[in-house]
Amino acid sequence: MERKNLIVGQSGGPTAAINSSLAGVYVGAKELGIDTVYGMRYGIEGLLKENIINLDDTLESTLNVELLKRTPSSYLGSCRYKLPEVKKGDEVYEKIFEILDKYNIGIFIYIGGNDSMDTIKKLSDYAKINGSKIRFVGVPKTIDNDLPVTDHTPGFGSAAKYIATSISEIVRDSNVYDLKSVTFVEIMGRNAGWLTAAAALAKNKSNDGPDFILLPEIGLDLKKFIGILSDRMQTKGNIVVAVSEGIKDTNGHHISEDECNVDAFGHKMLSGTAAFLAKKIKTELGVKTRAVEINTLQRAAAHLQSKTDIDEAFNIGFLGAKAGIDGNTGVMMNFERVENSPYLSIVKKCDINLVANIEKCIPGEWISEDGFYVNEHFIQYAKPLIMGELSNIVCDGIQSHIKSL
Amino acid sequence: MERKNLIVGQSGGPTAAINSSLAGVYVGAKELGIDTVYGMRYGIEGLLKENIINLDDTLESTLNVELLKRTPSSYLGSCRYKLPEVKKGDEVYEKIFEILDKYNIGIFIYIGGNDSMDTIKKLSDYAKINGSKIRFVGVPKTIDNDLPVTDHTPGFGSAAKYIATSISEIVRDSNVYDLKSVTFVEIMGRNAGWLTAAAALAKNKSNDGPDFILLPEIGLDLKKFIGILSDRMQTKGNIVVAVSEGIKDTNGHHISEDECNVDAFGHKMLSGTAAFLAKKIKTELGVKTRAVEINTLQRAAAHLQSKTDIDEAFNIGFLGAKAGIDGNTGVMMNFERVENSPYLSIVKKCDINLVANIEKCIPGEWISEDGFYVNEHFIQYAKPLIMGELSNIVCDGIQSHIKSL
Repeated sequence: MERKNLIVGQSGGPTAAINSSLAGVYVGAKELGIDTVYGMRYGIEGLLKENIINLDDTLESTLNVELLKRTPSSYLGSCRYKLPEVKKGDEVYEKIFEILDKYNIGIFIYIGGNDSMDTIKKLSDYAKINGSKIRFVGVPKTIDNDLPVTDHTPGFGSAAKYIATSISEIVRDSNVYDLKSVTFVEIMGRNAGWLTAAAALAKNKSNDGPDFILLPEIGLDLKKFIGILSDRMQTKGNIVVAVSEGIKDTNGHHISEDECNVDAFGHKMLSGTAAFLAKKIKTELGVKTRAVEINTLQRAAAHLQSKTDIDEAFNIGFLGAKAGIDGNTGVMMNFERVENSPYLSIVKKCDINLVANIEKCIPGEWISEDGFYVNEHFIQYAKPLIMGELSNIVCDGIQSHIKSL
Repeated sequence: MERKNLIVGQSGGPTAAINSSLAGVYVGAKELGIDTVYGMRYGIEGLLKENIINLDDTLESTLNVELLKRTPSSYLGSCRYKLPEVKKGDEVYEKIFEILDKYNIGIFIYIGGNDSMDTIKKLSDYAKINGSKIRFVGVPKTIDNDLPVTDHTPGFGSAAKYIATSISEIVRDSNVYDLKSVTFVEIMGRNAGWLTAAAALAKNKSNDGPDFILLPEIGLDLKKFIGILSDRMQTKGNIVVAVSEGIKDTNGHHISEDECNVDAFGHKMLSGTAAFLAKKIKTELGVKTRAVEINTLQRAAAHLQSKTDIDEAFNIGFLGAKAGIDGNTGVMMNFERVENSPYLSIVKKCDINLVANIEKCIPGEWISEDGFYVNEHFIQYAKPLIMGELSNIVCDGIQSHIKSL
């Protein structure tokens, strides 16, 4: 390899595991002989401004590497920048490759979700038509777990563990009074219900878990749901419903759309699904209702990381660096599950064209017949991903993070 | 002591520590020679329906005692029932004492907040004027930390640890994009800002913590706040504001009151303070804003208990049982702080009349001069209470609880 250096960036929404992948990229690159590992601040957008740092400055310390693995959000910062269509001589691409040349970059790693894989695809396509030897490798991350090809995405396991734990606590909290109540818990996921489905992992011998799970994959027949809910409340006083922020009615319209025009939030449009349902059910059934929006906490809760997730995130980052060094480009690293029990996944790589801009939803056969829960297929799939706890590094009572850049 | 048995109940809102006090009452009572320890379901309301269980059935198992300490919410169930004024011959009181006689109760322990201490006061007063020898002892709990006399209340430390940890994560989450933004995090506490102030514990060498803390003790001058916020944003892009659900304007009106009439929640009136501020600041300063309501999660988050809190909750329950056995009645158990560093508190008891129906707010001299933060006095007070982590008992990736009744 002529070029000596590697640059890595993070993009899209924060997760509790994306920094572990960054740690993996750094450690892998250094162990495999890369001279300098650069980080781009705020993803490709920062790169265009030449906002670039040398990661040796902070990550040569192994304690900092461990802290980085336990730090939520994106250490390098993130962006939501979509590259233009690939065209020879395009100004944006020329600028990017000029900067990469200047820093003697041989390998470009981007850690992110759907949009980030689109960036890898475009940059590798551009390199190809321009004869550049820079290698472009995508490392997946998203709490939404909606990337195709890969069995699952880093970040999902930790968010799912947080959801399951929080739901188990909300279930306990909800049955404290001797009355009839329905608690709606709103969970992230606009088109894919993976995280909302993770609420089912709260169910065990000492906890009922949620009573219903409303997924965006299934059009919600509100009238039918109210009937089934009403029936259930004949025998059970306090009900907990996990609901995706993105659920739609049977016509494909977001159920809270009408309300959005009159709400007092100033929020993005889909927020308020739980609040909408809480109001509706209170009116229809005359019972106490509550809306709990787990919100940004679910993607940032590094204090409750899944060890499986953090280890896998690190490894897929490490092997992403290796894939670049080995000469691969235009690929995304992915997990292939070998066994459910005992759980074993291995890291592979796939053509980026199979991934970019495609969303993976929960298979229909993993959803219960009435559409209001998930079945054992989902549980077997998801349970291994939330297993294990990291040894928290705690100072003054709260988990330590790496110092912000 | 003629009577052989003890009955214990829980009342008011759930916390992550109230069950540890229940465990302490049970273990203390058994170790000190009580025959049978009964639990009333749903507090005094359940007692009136003779909804009573024998706690030996579940708590003779030491594993169950450990699980109980790690279970959030109220194991026995709760109520918000206010006893009528004490009057000889009153039907409600006659019924209560009749049931206590039937179960041969010598000691009545009630674990709860302000209202529960009112119950202890009234029952002990009634016993006095009727010559009953039953002893009534209050064991404090409330995440709000607003009981007088006691240095702090069980439940506050764990909720404060959760708030501080979550805020530190939200701060990381908020600065991921290269833009101007303000995130409002709404925290429980209507009249006392103890929990909101706990956000300050997120600040350390690697985390900025919240930039502002808006407390209900201070009337919010919105115009002044917007000015200071705008100044701060000249030098800092992403701002996090911890805000109490109960903050009022300088005239003593809840700042979101006007909005409540038109909101789409169906919630209790004060909800939506963060949403109100997010909307207001977006309009006034033209920056991206977000509202995060931590909601019920902060009182139920048993997965992040403070070991100091859980140990103290257990001990104060244990010593509450002992106080009753020793002949005390009409008392609440309380903490007296001996040292801040190294931290040491001891358990005492005080006259229930000093406690019932009185709210304790943050002292003015613990709040920063401009009214938008807390100072070192608060930090020294609160930090010891969030210290230490419990060894979680985890099955299938999530913390185990005792089986629901």
